[in-house]
Amino acid sequence: MKIILIGASGTIGRRIYETLSSKHEIVRASRKGEDVEVDMTSAESIEKMYKSVADVDAVICAAGPAKFGLFKDLTEEDFYVGLRGKMMGQVNLVRIGQNYINDGGSFALTTGILADEPIAGSTAVTLLNAGLNGFALAAAQELGRGMRVNVVSPSIVEDSIAAYGDAFAGFDAVPMDRVVNAYIRCITGQFTGRVIRVV
Amino acid sequence: MKIILIGASGTIGRRIYETLSSKHEIVRASRKGEDVEVDMTSAESIEKMYKSVADVDAVICAAGPAKFGLFKDLTEEDFYVGLRGKMMGQVNLVRIGQNYINDGGSFALTTGILADEPIAGSTAVTLLNAGLNGFALAAAQELGRGMRVNVVSPSIVEDSIAAYGDAFAGFDAVPMDRVVNAYIRCITGQFTGRVIRVV
Repeated sequence: MKIILIGASGTIGRRIYETLSSKHEIVRASRKGEDVEVDMTSAESIEKMYKSVADVDAVICAAGPAKFGLFKDLTEEDFYVGLRGKMMGQVNLVRIGQNYINDGGSFALTTGILADEPIAGSTAVTLLNAGLNGFALAAAQELGRGMRVNVVSPSIVEDSIAAYGDAFAGFDAVPMDRVVNAYIRCITGQFTGRVIRVV
Repeated sequence: MKIILIGASGTIGRRIYETLSSKHEIVRASRKGEDVEVDMTSAESIEKMYKSVADVDAVICAAGPAKFGLFKDLTEEDFYVGLRGKMMGQVNLVRIGQNYINDGGSFALTTGILADEPIAGSTAVTLLNAGLNGFALAAAQELGRGMRVNVVSPSIVEDSIAAYGDAFAGFDAVPMDRVVNAYIRCITGQFTGRVIRVV
């Protein structure tokens, strides 16, 4: 399969790349542009990415800016960082990508456990994660040409414990290979409109 | 109780007003400004509304623009109509309102069954409804001074059958008094962070 991987240098994306690159052709997309440049916050940039990469079977997104902060302190703009980034960025990957990827191609998006289990400071992130979980369900029903869309929603992952473990105190950290497996199931499976919770 | 009701002239808001106005002081807020003017798409307008109405015990929102359309046809801007309107409008009612309403005051927001059960053309609406359902859960944990926030998520309501019945073919329409009751439970109850599904 030829797979566009957005966020290949991130905590989760790195592991996806390591695991999938031996069996599949991975096109790494990011702002730095390892293989192709993309700014997820820009629909124009996403369209340009799809135009520059032909014959795509799957798109995995493991990236997307969002802002944490206590609800009493969050500004409207803080919410929009995530709405324009992780939320509309992923919506646009599917919305625009449906015109470019191969018949039967699929999208695997990323949300997170905060959609279901908020922590202090997650209001803006919970909003967009929960929204995207719903979006996948709705978009899956309308995609044509056998295309599919699913979401991987992990708990805190083992590689993030040092950075975020305190904020997720009491959450069971999930091994990286279980998270990577969820993306593999999404792109190699037959299902659509699912949220794969890795907890 | 003194209650700000946003969308008092809408299909659901009208019934909320009829039922609650005999027992409570209702301040009707809308763009037309029956009692007070508010443009839900503007944080500044929402702040101005709160500054002009003192001693508020509850806020009910039964309004919010959003755009329907097949996923293959929706533009990015179509999504933003709902994100700025029904979604961030209601987020801002709580985000800003937490600085103004009385101790123990509560917010009752509105989403809808499309959060859980998408129909053709609901992608953008499902996204924002599902997001708001999650938002209420997260914000409820962080509100201070005994404040509460809940969501009413109705199926198609009886008064909307003529206008939208065909799009909701096979959905059971819910009687208006059951929908109004859900808002009453939210503002008179003790719970918070709940999504009351009226189906």
